[in-house]
Amino acid sequence: MNAEIISVGTELILGQIADTNAVCIARRLAECGFNVLYKTAVGDDIDALGAALRIATERAELIIVTGGLGPTEDDITRQAVAAVLGVELSLNEDAFRHMQELFLLRHLEIPPTNKIQAMIPSGGTIIPNKIGTASGFAVTFRRAEIICLPGVPVEMKQMLEEWVIPHILKKSGLVQTKAIRYVHTFGMSESMVDEKIKGLMGRENNPRAGTMVGEGVVSICLCADAESRAKALELLDEAEREVRRLLGEVVFGIDGEGLEHAVAYLLKRGDKTIATAESCTGGLVSDLLTNVPGVSDCFVEGIVAYSNKVKVEILGVPEGLIYTVGAVSPEVACAMAGGVRRRANVDIGLGITGIAGPTGATPDKPAGLVYIAFETDSDVICKERRFLGERVNVKRQAALEALNMVRLYLLSMGNASS
Amino acid sequence: MNAEIISVGTELILGQIADTNAVCIARRLAECGFNVLYKTAVGDDIDALGAALRIATERAELIIVTGGLGPTEDDITRQAVAAVLGVELSLNEDAFRHMQELFLLRHLEIPPTNKIQAMIPSGGTIIPNKIGTASGFAVTFRRAEIICLPGVPVEMKQMLEEWVIPHILKKSGLVQTKAIRYVHTFGMSESMVDEKIKGLMGRENNPRAGTMVGEGVVSICLCADAESRAKALELLDEAEREVRRLLGEVVFGIDGEGLEHAVAYLLKRGDKTIATAESCTGGLVSDLLTNVPGVSDCFVEGIVAYSNKVKVEILGVPEGLIYTVGAVSPEVACAMAGGVRRRANVDIGLGITGIAGPTGATPDKPAGLVYIAFETDSDVICKERRFLGERVNVKRQAALEALNMVRLYLLSMGNASS
Repeated sequence: MNAEIISVGTELILGQIADTNAVCIARRLAECGFNVLYKTAVGDDIDALGAALRIATERAELIIVTGGLGPTEDDITRQAVAAVLGVELSLNEDAFRHMQELFLLRHLEIPPTNKIQAMIPSGGTIIPNKIGTASGFAVTFRRAEIICLPGVPVEMKQMLEEWVIPHILKKSGLVQTKAIRYVHTFGMSESMVDEKIKGLMGRENNPRAGTMVGEGVVSICLCADAESRAKALELLDEAEREVRRLLGEVVFGIDGEGLEHAVAYLLKRGDKTIATAESCTGGLVSDLLTNVPGVSDCFVEGIVAYSNKVKVEILGVPEGLIYTVGAVSPEVACAMAGGVRRRANVDIGLGITGIAGPTGATPDKPAGLVYIAFETDSDVICKERRFLGERVNVKRQAALEALNMVRLYLLSMGNASS
Repeated sequence: MNAEIISVGTELILGQIADTNAVCIARRLAECGFNVLYKTAVGDDIDALGAALRIATERAELIIVTGGLGPTEDDITRQAVAAVLGVELSLNEDAFRHMQELFLLRHLEIPPTNKIQAMIPSGGTIIPNKIGTASGFAVTFRRAEIICLPGVPVEMKQMLEEWVIPHILKKSGLVQTKAIRYVHTFGMSESMVDEKIKGLMGRENNPRAGTMVGEGVVSICLCADAESRAKALELLDEAEREVRRLLGEVVFGIDGEGLEHAVAYLLKRGDKTIATAESCTGGLVSDLLTNVPGVSDCFVEGIVAYSNKVKVEILGVPEGLIYTVGAVSPEVACAMAGGVRRRANVDIGLGITGIAGPTGATPDKPAGLVYIAFETDSDVICKERRFLGERVNVKRQAALEALNMVRLYLLSMGNASS
């Protein structure tokens, strides 16, 4: 069974917007056993969308369309689908009642333009939207089913899980026999990862492994196919163990886990606390760490010491040291780490200082030069790194490198004590 | 003239990767006067890519393909194009020599598998890749030109600007007569923005305006078409002024500018300094602010006060106050703002406290409840907000709201003093 995803919106073509909806849908469809070979973004143009729908229905049994269900003139999905089917739009009473309730809750009148959101192509099936005003719908065209969902991710996801997935599984007679898992690594190049796991990458492998790179993280995508989803998940567990065996400690997590999750997990496991003192990363490390729910048990405080004054006053970095060796130096990074560790009374103090650029560079201290230090009761470690790229890239690479240093240290401590 | 973009790679369908290449290409093609109606992602499958190419050549004069030019078995773009054309691949001597030089520089032998990267469909034109080993190529199929570029963004961009854009402008006789600008707003719903600027949104307008939403920001995309790019830019200037007039102070920037750029600009203009005290946002505000080059002139320090101890010790929040009204309260938000302002000796102190969730909520203090306060020498302002969504969404909305509060305050000060 082939499926396709069509995302509607000129912003998806011209805008700097990642189409997270399509990724989420593709993965769920693949897990349900559908073959997802195409993902198309179409501008807000009735004819262009109509043409894309016709092509899709010739090569796929299932087409999921997202976006273009809003109340404005630009929103053309329901009209385009009706035109392809050669039917009119008609008001769905249930959907209109639901919309009335939502507006009532907010003590608002329904603007006349919004009524269109309760209209679907005649003969179609409504897909309730519990959260928003844009109802979805499903229609059949030739041998294909076209399912239209709103573009707002939280609404789309809720409708996908509660209506679409059960519906297509029931209708297709498919069961979820596939499963996908991402295994993330940091600190090894993609070609080296490829080399180490090449035994898992052949087309005949099950699960089959492939690699992809994003922001310094090399991820291995494992895709398993078995007679049941439970069995597929078992195969994934086995393959994940094998990947971890082959790659060792560069593996830091799976699926939605970032380096910050790995660090938070290891801190909790080891009953350790941490505090950060950041200069060039400007709070990015503490921002990432505090994305992890419940991290307040181990992350106590972060000092963004952008001025030398703060480094001296809060972190106790000796003013003379800054004067002698400069704020961007291994000595100051170590003093920041030690300073925040003592101030916060934690197990691990992390200090980062560097030149994010493009300004602030000197002949011997180029943009991208970063010192990352951490102090524990037994160790002081400082690394020098030179990152390339623009300011935000330098910040991100430095923050990830810092988190990875802490992760590897906590790992080695855990291994030593166990 | 119609153009299409095809991105090759299963990771673009299943992976959590934003296709930044396609966005960049679409915008440049639009600015060159091409109509970009479709953007398709295709998995690593020769037949699927072949079918997509055939469809694209029927509806567009220019097809730009990115990705699938690597040396591995998964890389199928050159083979798929050759199959569509019904020709063989042949080695391009120039490209091979270039590859030899690159490997020599790294003191490496060319692995046998890499030779394929210097092969292009017979009769095609090579597009030099100055940075990497994957050469691009251009071929003609029926009335369309197919241009294939590598997926590595830095290589793709260099080849796009140096070879593709000059080539297609020359060949098509087009000149860059279009220009695109995004105008960003915060604090007004998309439908209200639509309502206010609807006079600019009709299909006959030049520039034509459309709106799009991303992470709380409503953006107006202005697309101008004139007899020259200079004239198109003039039209954009006029339209931007009109949008600003219609929408007022909800407009905070254009194109790559975020709220943090607006705040940094206004701080510099007013010669003001700021310091932040963040609890639930965990450093996100300072992270955003420090993304702006040169912000160190006005951003002095940020305290991520995740524990009550830090709120008391560094920010001087009275312990009794936290005990009486709770850490998530307008009183503590104000005390944090005042505390960091005095500690850092700055003009504006910003304090944020709240419950990012999912843990930490109480019956009267639900997840998503956030207090944002700021203190200046003349004012203390605190706002209560209730954000929906997951932890990271709550953090982001709170951070943007905080930046916007500061922005509006600085704007009003600027207006009052001028």
